[in-house]
Amino acid sequence: MIQSTRQTNVDSGNLSQNGRRRAVIESVEPEIDSGRFPVKQTIGEEVVVEADVFADGHDTLSVALLYRKQEEAIWREKPMEPLGNDRWRGAFSVEELGRYKYTILASVDRFKTWANALEINGRAGQDLSQDLIRGAEILAETASRATGGDATDLLQWSDRLTADAAGHKNNWELGLDPKLSQLMDAYPDRSLATTYSRELEVVVDREKARFSTWYEMFPRSCSPKDGVHATFEDCVNRLPYIAEMGFDVLYLPPIHPIGSTGRKGKNNSTQAMAHDIGSPWGIGGADGGHMDIHPELGTMEDFRELVAKATEHGMEIALDLAFQCSPDHPYVASHPDWFRHRPDGSIQFAENPPKRYEDIYPFDFESPLWPEIWEELKAVILHWANQGVRIFRVDNPHTKSFPFWEWVIGEIKNEHPDVFFLAEAFTRPKVMYRLAKVGFSQSYTYFTWKNAKWELEQYFTEIVQPSIRDFFRPNLWPNTPDILSEYLQVGGRPAFVARLVLAATLGANYGIYGPSFELMERTPREPGSEEYLDSEKYQLRHWEMGRPDNLAELIGRVNQIRRDNLALHRDARLSFHTTDNDQLICYSKRTDDGSNVVLVVVNLDPHRPHSGVVDLSLDDLGLEADESFQVHDLLTDTRFLWGGQHNFIELDPQVSPARVFRILSRLHSEWNFDDQL
Amino acid sequence: MIQSTRQTNVDSGNLSQNGRRRAVIESVEPEIDSGRFPVKQTIGEEVVVEADVFADGHDTLSVALLYRKQEEAIWREKPMEPLGNDRWRGAFSVEELGRYKYTILASVDRFKTWANALEINGRAGQDLSQDLIRGAEILAETASRATGGDATDLLQWSDRLTADAAGHKNNWELGLDPKLSQLMDAYPDRSLATTYSRELEVVVDREKARFSTWYEMFPRSCSPKDGVHATFEDCVNRLPYIAEMGFDVLYLPPIHPIGSTGRKGKNNSTQAMAHDIGSPWGIGGADGGHMDIHPELGTMEDFRELVAKATEHGMEIALDLAFQCSPDHPYVASHPDWFRHRPDGSIQFAENPPKRYEDIYPFDFESPLWPEIWEELKAVILHWANQGVRIFRVDNPHTKSFPFWEWVIGEIKNEHPDVFFLAEAFTRPKVMYRLAKVGFSQSYTYFTWKNAKWELEQYFTEIVQPSIRDFFRPNLWPNTPDILSEYLQVGGRPAFVARLVLAATLGANYGIYGPSFELMERTPREPGSEEYLDSEKYQLRHWEMGRPDNLAELIGRVNQIRRDNLALHRDARLSFHTTDNDQLICYSKRTDDGSNVVLVVVNLDPHRPHSGVVDLSLDDLGLEADESFQVHDLLTDTRFLWGGQHNFIELDPQVSPARVFRILSRLHSEWNFDDQL
Repeated sequence: MIQSTRQTNVDSGNLSQNGRRRAVIESVEPEIDSGRFPVKQTIGEEVVVEADVFADGHDTLSVALLYRKQEEAIWREKPMEPLGNDRWRGAFSVEELGRYKYTILASVDRFKTWANALEINGRAGQDLSQDLIRGAEILAETASRATGGDATDLLQWSDRLTADAAGHKNNWELGLDPKLSQLMDAYPDRSLATTYSRELEVVVDREKARFSTWYEMFPRSCSPKDGVHATFEDCVNRLPYIAEMGFDVLYLPPIHPIGSTGRKGKNNSTQAMAHDIGSPWGIGGADGGHMDIHPELGTMEDFRELVAKATEHGMEIALDLAFQCSPDHPYVASHPDWFRHRPDGSIQFAENPPKRYEDIYPFDFESPLWPEIWEELKAVILHWANQGVRIFRVDNPHTKSFPFWEWVIGEIKNEHPDVFFLAEAFTRPKVMYRLAKVGFSQSYTYFTWKNAKWELEQYFTEIVQPSIRDFFRPNLWPNTPDILSEYLQVGGRPAFVARLVLAATLGANYGIYGPSFELMERTPREPGSEEYLDSEKYQLRHWEMGRPDNLAELIGRVNQIRRDNLALHRDARLSFHTTDNDQLICYSKRTDDGSNVVLVVVNLDPHRPHSGVVDLSLDDLGLEADESFQVHDLLTDTRFLWGGQHNFIELDPQVSPARVFRILSRLHSEWNFDDQL
Repeated sequence: MIQSTRQTNVDSGNLSQNGRRRAVIESVEPEIDSGRFPVKQTIGEEVVVEADVFADGHDTLSVALLYRKQEEAIWREKPMEPLGNDRWRGAFSVEELGRYKYTILASVDRFKTWANALEINGRAGQDLSQDLIRGAEILAETASRATGGDATDLLQWSDRLTADAAGHKNNWELGLDPKLSQLMDAYPDRSLATTYSRELEVVVDREKARFSTWYEMFPRSCSPKDGVHATFEDCVNRLPYIAEMGFDVLYLPPIHPIGSTGRKGKNNSTQAMAHDIGSPWGIGGADGGHMDIHPELGTMEDFRELVAKATEHGMEIALDLAFQCSPDHPYVASHPDWFRHRPDGSIQFAENPPKRYEDIYPFDFESPLWPEIWEELKAVILHWANQGVRIFRVDNPHTKSFPFWEWVIGEIKNEHPDVFFLAEAFTRPKVMYRLAKVGFSQSYTYFTWKNAKWELEQYFTEIVQPSIRDFFRPNLWPNTPDILSEYLQVGGRPAFVARLVLAATLGANYGIYGPSFELMERTPREPGSEEYLDSEKYQLRHWEMGRPDNLAELIGRVNQIRRDNLALHRDARLSFHTTDNDQLICYSKRTDDGSNVVLVVVNLDPHRPHSGVVDLSLDDLGLEADESFQVHDLLTDTRFLWGGQHNFIELDPQVSPARVFRILSRLHSEWNFDDQL
């Protein structure tokens, strides 16, 4: 890629010229829904743009990728290069947070067309005098647009061509001089150029939107004393343990005052006892609403202290945005018209017929007062951003309107381009994708329920394809407070380890709900349920962190592997490899430059050892056919020599259901004495 | 599909409502390049439209397909029905030539959402009084928008619901009464509806644009006397022979005066002899240009007579539009600035370096005088349309600018919506597709060079996929005056028959260049060349139509099979079936309703008999597993009983390299004594 940039003013069109604009620009990628939505990228990365560009006839084209920050007036420019079959590619780097725009400019290049013909005619021994004079004309014309010494130089070139023509010197090499083409490149003739019909957008997030490691924890359950409601101070004391495991986002369910009307008791009982503490998602009561803190957790100052201490441990606090109210929420009294009313005058509770959630009042996004609701919810987010929160996990975004999310995320990112949002939408595929399009930087996925090899392969093949990969960033969770999957319920330790490794290596973003996960909590409320027995959603839990079977050390190792291997920092360049055993899944990820290649094999059967032959796509691994290479299992620090496409593997889930290999190719041989392994 | 239509006025938006518009419309099909180009359909057909439509939450939607003729002000409307996974489908018929527009309207349907919840809550035995009162409110509101008796009826329904609520009668059946929902459907609440962001277009051609059978013939070579330049009268005498073969389009290479400067001699010799007649594509001379007729062929009146006589034989005359000039063309003198000039003042001839075509002057579409050129070429087309020509085959459209074609085809079709154009562009794939997008109704294809099974399967799978099938109508030619394929050169009669059957059954539009084709002319100018020896392009030919090996009778049978089988009138619903022999290709076509199913098997090896087992996709044939069925070979009128998925076939190319079966299922058995075979 040529690194020069040029500032470009697009002549958006003298209409009387339109019939002469011969270049066509089509099938631009990335482009989401005809440019209706921006693509996503993270800071310091390249946006690689491709398009079909061509004209009638056989003339040579010049194609430029134009880009600018949204707030800039002038386009910058990179050349695009032909890939064959009329496909062109260019790229630009995004060095700042915020929004960029890009588009494409193409024109028939008279000079390059001329130079091409000159060379061919010259090699064919034809008389070139007419060609040379024509070239002299083009150069003289260009000189009239050039400045200073360039204009003089171009006129000199022009004179030399004229002289050669007069002397019938068939000197075609002169027209192909690189110095001349460099000079001509500086003054392109854009008078008949075509600009692509749309200006496309990129939202640039910080790196953590692409690569993050989440730990979800109920703050009230981290007291060292059984039966005692924990405080933010207790959370601070838990930070070293979490940081040691290698997490960089600590996500807290809602920390606001909890309503008492309709409060749910333990195990979601509709009859709460006097001492029941309620669900943190039943937001709002006498002590305040979405901008307030549940008094038993501490004060706003305590919260800021938690944020500060987390930062010291290399972690950020992510807050939950659950935009709904308990019947006791202050909004219900102060703004009753933000809610729908039943014919009897009561406020309409949430329902999904025939289920009724009488403790939850949803906002009415169809209310004529919708602008008030939008502004207030924006104020809630800004309030927490002002406390230092930069990551929000949004509860059930699919039950609020899409226009609201597009607006509010845009507004917040305008003020705080480093803020990003994770969509907790477990719903229909197109709704999940739409939420990502309207602005969520990360999204929960169906990973939680994908256990079989074909399901995992199919789903991850889908979500890493263009254009989905351009707007949808998966965040993989083996468990959540709402989902104890059947696989974890029945599979014991091997299941937890397998799902951990899958989540941590299939997804650049993943998280666990702990300490439930690392302590392998796996008893459902009742058979067939995905709810935890004695779920923290409704009661305090006391966790024995020091249990010898705690997976913390293994989790720490997996997260260390993630940090050390750049291939795992991206969702791109994921390839599945065939195995001859349906219980063995095999896939790889690699960096663009091939300097880091990770190959993962997981035994999906938590009950039995499995063995088989993996059939590697060597191209995807950057390996030569029949090359010997070393595979280094980073989980166990063991090394194997493999060779060629077919390799045998055996995995006993009781020992380790997974191997996470780093591939080290170019072994020493007689051919590379001087190379470094 | 519900057949009712409604006239709709789209409220394109009270902006203050926008935040409340919850429905989303995405991924509309058909839609070409974000609606930049129209889709194509033929008169009397349905335009089937699909889209992803959904909203936040769980409310029920109503989705309508809006459509109108371009010149109409008011939208008509058809309901769209859900297919699952948030996909919706609707359709409208196009009953007139010209342009239609369509778009989609969607909204959360309060009444349907209410009725759904009512039923679920009712079946769950919940108290419905609040639901019923809410329903009464919705009905009363709707009544305020209703007219006449409908308003009264709705108020009565509303009162009944109110009474039921008061009596605590949990009478949910009332709310689901079909009479009520029919009444409500008539007055949809569109106040918060979403309209799709684009109005899409359909160009409606006549049926022949979709299904046509072409015969190309040099008129000057159809004299009964050897060595005599034929006239249009001789062409009239040839019409019965061509009609007998079942062709419905007779396409003539250019019929205009031919230039003498730089005229090519026999076999493309650059030195023409005095008696050489030149290529008809070297247009323009002392006797006129693109609006004139070569005097040796006859007069304009003779031409109109040919058009009339062809019509009597069920054929149309298609003319060639070759927009280029011989150096003797009147334009060269009258409008020298329509051409590019060389530095020495001479006009720039056509070139594709290092080749020079000094007998051809291309128009300069980058000339500042481009509007004059455009208007003149439009006048040429209108001139011939005024002589009764309705089909044009365009020579090398890819060497003229795309904006010109889009404009001129639009202009002509505005005046003559029954006119259509075939693009003779043998060039790069994206250029061919672009020409189809900008307005060509039919396109030449790569079929001519696709001989192997995998090539044919891959290419036809590509061109019948959405959205290519929505704008690209292939017209398949086994040969042209420029292309005598190597397959025909070496394969003898079996090759000609195989290519005929492939073209006639893979493509709803196909054509042959005759009498060369039916007389199996197959000697190239020299080895390795695709040019015919003694090509008609440069000299008269005398054809012995009465030769016993003339394929005319077989061609007639194939074209009769095409007419008789509706499955062959469309390119859609083409399926390839697996065979265990790479020389046997097998595919089927069927009508939408399954009433006509044609299955073709061709032995692609012209040299040897081949046999194998075809593995039928029974679903694509409308057959049950293990069903017995009859296959009736329409070429030989022989019948076979087949059964199930796997069937054996053997084809000797010396006997017949192909079978064109009609499938007759539902054989007589004890289960259908009363059915008709």
